[in-house]
Amino acid sequence: MLGKHLDNVRKNGPLVHNITNYVTVNDVANVLLACGGSPIMSDEPEDVEDITSICGGLNINIGTLNQNSIKGMFLAGKRANELNHILLLDPVGAGASSLRTNTAVKLMKEIKFNVIRGNISEIKTLAMGSGTTKGVDADVADAVTEDTLDQAVKFVKEFAAKAEAIIAVTGAIDLVSDGKECFVIRNGRPQMGRITGTGCQLSGMMTAFLVANPGELLESAAAAVCTMGLAGEIGWNNMQPGDGNSTYRNRIIDAIYNMTGEMLDKGAKYEVR
Amino acid sequence: MLGKHLDNVRKNGPLVHNITNYVTVNDVANVLLACGGSPIMSDEPEDVEDITSICGGLNINIGTLNQNSIKGMFLAGKRANELNHILLLDPVGAGASSLRTNTAVKLMKEIKFNVIRGNISEIKTLAMGSGTTKGVDADVADAVTEDTLDQAVKFVKEFAAKAEAIIAVTGAIDLVSDGKECFVIRNGRPQMGRITGTGCQLSGMMTAFLVANPGELLESAAAAVCTMGLAGEIGWNNMQPGDGNSTYRNRIIDAIYNMTGEMLDKGAKYEVR
Amino acid sequence: MLGKHLDNVRKNGPLVHNITNYVTVNDVANVLLACGGSPIMSDEPEDVEDITSICGGLNINIGTLNQNSIKGMFLAGKRANELNHILLLDPVGAGASSLRTNTAVKLMKEIKFNVIRGNISEIKTLAMGSGTTKGVDADVADAVTEDTLDQAVKFVKEFAAKAEAIIAVTGAIDLVSDGKECFVIRNGRPQMGRITGTGCQLSGMMTAFLVANPGELLESAAAAVCTMGLAGEIGWNNMQPGDGNSTYRNRIIDAIYNMTGEMLDKGAKYEVR
Repeated sequence: MLGKHLDNVRKNGPLVHNITNYVTVNDVANVLLACGGSPIMSDEPEDVEDITSICGGLNINIGTLNQNSIKGMFLAGKRANELNHILLLDPVGAGASSLRTNTAVKLMKEIKFNVIRGNISEIKTLAMGSGTTKGVDADVADAVTEDTLDQAVKFVKEFAAKAEAIIAVTGAIDLVSDGKECFVIRNGRPQMGRITGTGCQLSGMMTAFLVANPGELLESAAAAVCTMGLAGEIGWNNMQPGDGNSTYRNRIIDAIYNMTGEMLDKGAKYEVR
Repeated sequence: MLGKHLDNVRKNGPLVHNITNYVTVNDVANVLLACGGSPIMSDEPEDVEDITSICGGLNINIGTLNQNSIKGMFLAGKRANELNHILLLDPVGAGASSLRTNTAVKLMKEIKFNVIRGNISEIKTLAMGSGTTKGVDADVADAVTEDTLDQAVKFVKEFAAKAEAIIAVTGAIDLVSDGKECFVIRNGRPQMGRITGTGCQLSGMMTAFLVANPGELLESAAAAVCTMGLAGEIGWNNMQPGDGNSTYRNRIIDAIYNMTGEMLDKGAKYEVR
Repeated sequence: MLGKHLDNVRKNGPLVHNITNYVTVNDVANVLLACGGSPIMSDEPEDVEDITSICGGLNINIGTLNQNSIKGMFLAGKRANELNHILLLDPVGAGASSLRTNTAVKLMKEIKFNVIRGNISEIKTLAMGSGTTKGVDADVADAVTEDTLDQAVKFVKEFAAKAEAIIAVTGAIDLVSDGKECFVIRNGRPQMGRITGTGCQLSGMMTAFLVANPGELLESAAAAVCTMGLAGEIGWNNMQPGDGNSTYRNRIIDAIYNMTGEMLDKGAKYEVR
């Protein structure tokens, strides 16, 4: 069922405008190319409106925000809204600094996002208007586990309804909800947390999935999460003795490059609540 | 014949100043090191004149330009001109935004470049003063194919003569011309387009080739193109089941690292028109 | 003896704030994750004080400094000093431009660093207040060899005493001194110089080592140097025919990921003078 969403990315080759951090940007670009999309990066205020106009979707990631790129985020976001493009927000480090929290909150107020994707600590920060995160990683106390799952699903559904956006919380168990239904996804490997930017990569790829599947945003967001998680599993199976997190990074992107819709259909592990 | 140009890079170890985008910059640096050059990156206006002064060549790539780095491009370019250094322009995304097109056009007006390297859509934009590109990739309608080759060679020769610079158009077939002769190069693999930044990498490496071969700029620009394409072929031959675009990226850089002038002589596929 | 310092990094998972260049930043992040630390990057003046407050250490690297990030370096540095955090300076390219030299000198004047890590040319520049470097690589004339070792050890000790900081000079032979003792380290492979950013990676990782071993800064700085060098040896032993500098980069990070304290104890090659 989710496999066709990946097939549609490869068929349509959506162009995605990324305003994203300089830490993981190369991997975001290669993941977009791996899944069949096409990346373009631009954060300069004078450049972003033109660039976003020729794209199908805009991925805003505040991982290394600065005053100039923040201006670019608002300008690009407003233009993308006018053009009814797909918009995704990745609030990296919301809760870790006032600037990050406030920027994410203000972006959500002034711009309509289709999806907000982050770890549980970042999403809680946005939901509560404040919070703590251990840097750019989720706080252990917040982690979504089998024990806290019911409560977490309820939280994500409620926040999605309130925010009028699909909320995607990724971690050991991933939750993707539009306020009514919630995909509970169990793909992935814990070792993915030892690679920088798997979340950023997912945000870029998810934007491509959303653009290529306009009628089915919730399902395509879930399909992107399953694709990333399944790639993490396939990549791990391809690891050789001596391999570590740097090679694992390559193996995951390679697995996305080689994944078919059929493989995704077989490998996706999810339930809908 | 072209192999000696690579040998000269390894012999001379040219230092190349790169004002380049933050997406592919790490690969540009590693490709420069792979071919025997030495990279330094700097875009801050107060820093670039000193930095470019100690280098042999300047590679300007507008892939993620901003107001600050644009100032740096002009300052560095003018200083590099005064010092008779090698200068190369990579007009990433010219045609995709006014700022990119205008910056590239203004750079060409105020600064003397030895080489301008881009995809066919970017180069057409610069030649026509306007144009469309699909983001940072070439428009399919513009593609240089065997059918459109005669016309494309004519266009590149004419633009090179008019621009008084070597024009290098890369794609399925690569064209490198100084206005009189045109190298038509058939190295490379289509899958290279699924890796971010092979064009940026080539621009960095080409600058090193030009610096190390001052008397033979046209040939050394063509040698750099053949090196990149041949590395794409060798890298592809080294791919294992499960490998994808991320590993392919590494394999290409590795192939440059291991390439000898002799290998380049044997593997280069070109004709001169 | 040094192995426990690596074990402590894995035990404590120190969070390191990096204000670093956009060339090698992704590798810095992955190396920090490989050794057991956790990276966060932020250079915006309005963001850095909050971010550094939640971290244990601050790694300042001037590799692609700009006016905005320089402000961020001073603000973050002062805040980190107030909080008694670990601070490390990597003066990339000091000697290659006035801005780099002056920024590094001013940082050392206004901020108390626990460690300054660079190549011999950069460190000489800081010690002498002026100097020449071949871009971001050490000048051959400055190289620390067995012939110049006594003199180099004396220089590093004296500069460490004067600067009231641990000085770590890395190259073919690495020297780490607090002014009294000097670790002379012979791990590593010359081919590491053909990968961009092994020095930057070491600076990030060393900051994590220092944070995780607060009572033993000299030893933990030396342990980080040995870890990097040993990873360079292990990574090289894992190279296959056709592999080059791009794969070597991955192999080194992988080797750090897989290294145990016991392996470090066995593989570390050093004497204390």
